[in-house]
Amino acid sequence: MIIPGAQIGVPSRLALAWEAKRIYASRMSEFTPTARTQVRRLADRGHYDSETVYRILDAGFLCHVGFVVDGQPFVIPTGYARVDDAVYIHGSAASRMLRTLAGGVQVCVTVTLVDGFVLARSAFHHSMNYRSVVILGQAQEVKDLEEKSRALKAFTEHIVRDRWDMLRPIRESELKQTTVLRLPLTEVSAKIRTGPPKDDAEDYSLPIWAGVLPLKLVPGEFVPDPKLPPDIGIPEHLKNLKNYSR
Amino acid sequence: MIIPGAQIGVPSRLALAWEAKRIYASRMSEFTPTARTQVRRLADRGHYDSETVYRILDAGFLCHVGFVVDGQPFVIPTGYARVDDAVYIHGSAASRMLRTLAGGVQVCVTVTLVDGFVLARSAFHHSMNYRSVVILGQAQEVKDLEEKSRALKAFTEHIVRDRWDMLRPIRESELKQTTVLRLPLTEVSAKIRTGPPKDDAEDYSLPIWAGVLPLKLVPGEFVPDPKLPPDIGIPEHLKNLKNYSR
Repeated sequence: MIIPGAQIGVPSRLALAWEAKRIYASRMSEFTPTARTQVRRLADRGHYDSETVYRILDAGFLCHVGFVVDGQPFVIPTGYARVDDAVYIHGSAASRMLRTLAGGVQVCVTVTLVDGFVLARSAFHHSMNYRSVVILGQAQEVKDLEEKSRALKAFTEHIVRDRWDMLRPIRESELKQTTVLRLPLTEVSAKIRTGPPKDDAEDYSLPIWAGVLPLKLVPGEFVPDPKLPPDIGIPEHLKNLKNYSR
Repeated sequence: MIIPGAQIGVPSRLALAWEAKRIYASRMSEFTPTARTQVRRLADRGHYDSETVYRILDAGFLCHVGFVVDGQPFVIPTGYARVDDAVYIHGSAASRMLRTLAGGVQVCVTVTLVDGFVLARSAFHHSMNYRSVVILGQAQEVKDLEEKSRALKAFTEHIVRDRWDMLRPIRESELKQTTVLRLPLTEVSAKIRTGPPKDDAEDYSLPIWAGVLPLKLVPGEFVPDPKLPPDIGIPEHLKNLKNYSR
């Protein structure tokens, strides 16, 4: 590998930083599909550019984390947030999943957003419109309290922007009770299906309604905590959340 | 194990059928938690009765399937349907996931329904309301074309009741191109969180809005396939789907 900085006599650490930046910049535009992330079936649904991947990750908030204990795979739902080129997940330090993952085992984190039911003229071609991201790798435990705090802020702000500063500040004891894991976005792929059903050519003339029923996760009305004093109204930052739709 | 039928002289096959029915009936009311399905953290959120498990499975339609290839866990989203005491998943016979699972490996199928954001007075106590089911076991490939067809009908009807009979009938070639897997509901647990945030006692007096924002997956307006002849209106069975909310 040619390190351009080195060629023009820049000190090697700077040259490496430059190279790291260059790699990061290239990663910003495209993930390299591996044998494990390459979408093989219906390959036209596969996407490897970071804009597509990040947009899906930023639209979702629930992931399914896969890990293996004694040969048995487990798939556990949990929240997440993306910060730059990593996703963070967190949970109680007492959780079996977090303890297992903090041990540096292989993990798969999948985020799926369902966009609609695809109603075809035959059962065979019924489908769903969706956007999904699959991330493979090894999660690293975040031990630094500063980074942990930033990650926890990201979790909160990812769902409710501007809420973190309104809350009772986080305590060091809470940071210590929380395990935060960081999974770098390196081996990643996205898969997207959009549009109408794809029926067999001869089926299009059948008198069967076909099309898409879009689906959206939408918020209802705020339900105040029964213990909330009656004079505390819904603050501005939560009114934005009411428009939640992604 | 005592087989009551055998004691009163009923032919053994009938006795076994009776026993199977008895086991089924008992399974209808309670799954036995194993070391792997017992909800350990926040154990009061764990549920093992089949009514709770079935209700969650019947409300959802998307699962995340976890399996292991060369030590790497994969988590793939796919549709499913429950029929009696099993869930069926399906996909192309060419799919890597289906081929792997048909080989009889260990699998984890997880269904998660998000019901709301739980907004507490501290970041630490922010949470989500949700219902989830985790199923462990070994999936079996369904090879019998009759059972395959019944499973495919279940997939369709699970999402759109009364649609199967309106469709162009399924072809034997389509059944052969589809891999259907059956996962018995044996090692199963459900986990549910409902209700308001649980804040630290001293935080309840803080002037911070707290409560729940409910979330629901709701359908939009039908989008007809651009190739649909204009005289085909939306049939009755799809109008029911418009009320989709679970």
